Parts: sequence; structure tokens; C-alpha cells
Amino acid sequence: MPSTEKPVESLAPTARTTLKRLPKRGMYDRSNVYEILDEGVVCHVGFSVDQQPYVIPTAYGRSGDCLYIHGSPASRMLRSLQDGIEVCVTVTLLDGLVLARSAFHHSMNYRSVVVFGTATLVEDSAHKLEALRSFTEHIMPGRWQEVRQPSPQELAGTLVLALPLEEASAKIRTGPPIDDADDYALPVWAGVVPLNLAPLAPIPDPQLPETIALPEYIQHYRKSSN
Amino acid sequence: MPSTEKPVESLAPTARTTLKRLPKRGMYDRSNVYEILDEGVVCHVGFSVDQQPYVIPTAYGRSGDCLYIHGSPASRMLRSLQDGIEVCVTVTLLDGLVLARSAFHHSMNYRSVVVFGTATLVEDSAHKLEALRSFTEHIMPGRWQEVRQPSPQELAGTLVLALPLEEASAKIRTGPPIDDADDYALPVWAGVVPLNLAPLAPIPDPQLPETIALPEYIQHYRKSSN
Repeated sequence: MPSTEKPVESLAPTARTTLKRLPKRGMYDRSNVYEILDEGVVCHVGFSVDQQPYVIPTAYGRSGDCLYIHGSPASRMLRSLQDGIEVCVTVTLLDGLVLARSAFHHSMNYRSVVVFGTATLVEDSAHKLEALRSFTEHIMPGRWQEVRQPSPQELAGTLVLALPLEEASAKIRTGPPIDDADDYALPVWAGVVPLNLAPLAPIPDPQLPETIALPEYIQHYRKSSN
Repeated sequence: MPSTEKPVESLAPTARTTLKRLPKRGMYDRSNVYEILDEGVVCHVGFSVDQQPYVIPTAYGRSGDCLYIHGSPASRMLRSLQDGIEVCVTVTLLDGLVLARSAFHHSMNYRSVVVFGTATLVEDSAHKLEALRSFTEHIMPGRWQEVRQPSPQELAGTLVLALPLEEASAKIRTGPPIDDADDYALPVWAGVVPLNLAPLAPIPDPQLPETIALPEYIQHYRKSSN
């Protein structure tokens, strides 16, 4: 557990976000939650239609105390969610494989956030534009100001949903394996293999003129804090 | 889209797995689905209790046509799922950031699998042991034969659920951004930043004697096929 984190503001734990197991792994302050949300790239959106759960991976953005997801008005997910049903959005960062001396104590180091709530349709154009800015900047900070901005048609053709970041919790595991006392004597390598979501060399679009150089914000892009 | 994949066996599309949008991104053959499941490390398990959806990140294993998840009998997720409710398990591999010339056409390259079904409790000990083997080997191939095997108490204290891989689909996006025809003339860098879940140098457990060398299967561990 990182003990240097300073809680900035608390997200009051509710019945849904209170961790039932391993409560020491749970955190409820906004700084933890937002750090994880900002480092993640993809979220998993969970919702139910007629008792059938769906978990859909999708891009997202955050601006202030709001998480945004978007898509085509034809998307089954977005059509379902705009009816005001309950949603659960989870973002998981995988930090390492935890290799213990026993099979039983193998684990993973990770940071995850679970957000509960009801999404609402963003209809105001200025609000919608801010959400679209948050998507582009979430994928690649520095990108929004360089690319062609959404046209009125694109703005109208994008369905944006906002989920207030009111009921959320973070869960974090760090550090070495925890083995049973007797197992420390076993002649088995134990430790952590850290994992890092690393960018490789950018691949220019085949139609990109050679005269257009790679911008600095892409050259220095780094997602994982691991 | 990789066009070199050979379908091995088909998973018949159902109403839940048939992609409503961008159907060309959908694939239903076992080889695609299993390749993605085997490369993933964490899955997101979705289920509903009293209309409330939950999406929980967790480890998993695959053996044959079964996906396994596990945990403590005290886990809310596992207690809920063993009641035989519908579940949706999603595994997502993030392969790259797709940077288009317009904000609107930004996207991601990814491979994901969605599995629907009803999980059942694994009670037979041999079957349970095979599931535990699949968890350990999923985290680190080669690990199972080296570590201390589960004791009868550990076996009894682990709740294992099996989800048959009968209703599943894969969704894949590859390649450069697709921009509007007029936008190709814009002086904006466009292309893909590939992302790769890369292992960093293993960190030995602080309690590991220096005489225990790093095994070769950990030295050569590589998860991402990107």
C-alpha cells in the first residue's frame, strides 16, 4: 500500500462501494480514484438489460467530477444506458504478477476503481464539446488543440453520457507475495514481475506525407506510472 | 483485421453475442476467442444483484472449453455467482492508440472477448485441482510444477466457478486511423501508437535467499503478442 498518498477529498463509502473482503485494500479518496481513472485507457461498463448483464470495454474521459463515455446513437450500450439504468464502470491497471512459493498465494499487483451510478445524456453543446475534449485528451494529452474539432454534424451524431463521480472506490495491491510461514524455507524463486503498458515506436499512417513530423507530445507519451 | 486467421471451430452467434454495430469487427471462432483469453491476464466479471450491476476485475484460467474464476467463499461476487445467475466475462487487450486527423475519428486498436453464460460451482477435487493449475499457469506458464501444490485445506478453502465457453465472441480493431476524405490534406500527424504490456526486471521477494536463481521461464516471460 502506498502510504504517501494524501487524501484530498473523501468519497463517502456506501453499501455498494464498501469492500467486504480485504478492506485494507480499499480507498475512497478522490485523489486515489482520479489518479487511477486518468492513467487508465479503457474502462469496462457494466449494465443489465432484462436480467442479462453486459460488460463492454470502451474509451472514456474525465473532466472534473464527471466520467464520460460516448458512442454512436445506434450503440446498444448507449441506448440502454440513456434510459437511466444503473451502471457500474470499472478501470483496472495491472501492475505486476505476484509469484509466491505456493500456488495458493499467487496474486497480482493492480490498481482498480469501481464507479456506481446512473448515467445521464449530455445534451448541452458546450458540455458535450467539453466531454469530447476529455476523450481526445484522455487518449493523448496535447492532442485536442492540434486536430480538427468536431463539426456540428459530428457533435450531433455522438451520444455522450455523463456519470457523476460520487460513488466510487479504489482498490490497490502492491508489494511482494505473502507466503505461509513454513513456505519461506522452500527453494522456490518468489517475487514480483512488474508489468508496464509501454508505448512502442509510433507507426505513421500510410497516407501521411513525410514532411509532417512526429509531435513532441507523442514522442514523450508515457501512460504507465509503474 | 488479420485475415490470416483460420477458423478452427465456430461458436454459434446468439442474440447476445451478435454484434449490432460494426459487425465486420466481430469474430466467433474458437481460435480467435482462445488466443485472446490466453493472452489476457485479468478479466472483468459482470453480474447483477437486485438490478445492481457489478463489474469486478479478477484473475482467471482456461482449460479446454471452460473458463475458471476463483476466490474466497466469503467473496460477494462468488457467493452471488454460485447461485446460478447470468454472468458476462470480458477480457480486453489494448494494442494501440489510433490518432486520427479529426477528434471524431480517434480510436483504439484492441482485441476483446465477451463470454455469456451461467457459472457453476466446481466441487469434484480433481476438476478443482485442474482449475487451480490453470490459474497458476495462466499467470506464469511453467510455474505450477515448481511451487507448493494446494493442500487439502487450501483446496477446500477456495471457491472455484466454471463458465462454459459456449457463447462467446471476439472483437478486434487493427490498422491505421480512418479519416474523412477531406481531412487527409490537414497538416496533422496521424497514425498509431502501439501499446505493449511489457514485463520489467523481476523484483525478488526481500526474504528470498540470494542462492535461489531466477528460473528461465520467468526470465523469458512475455505476455503481449503486440
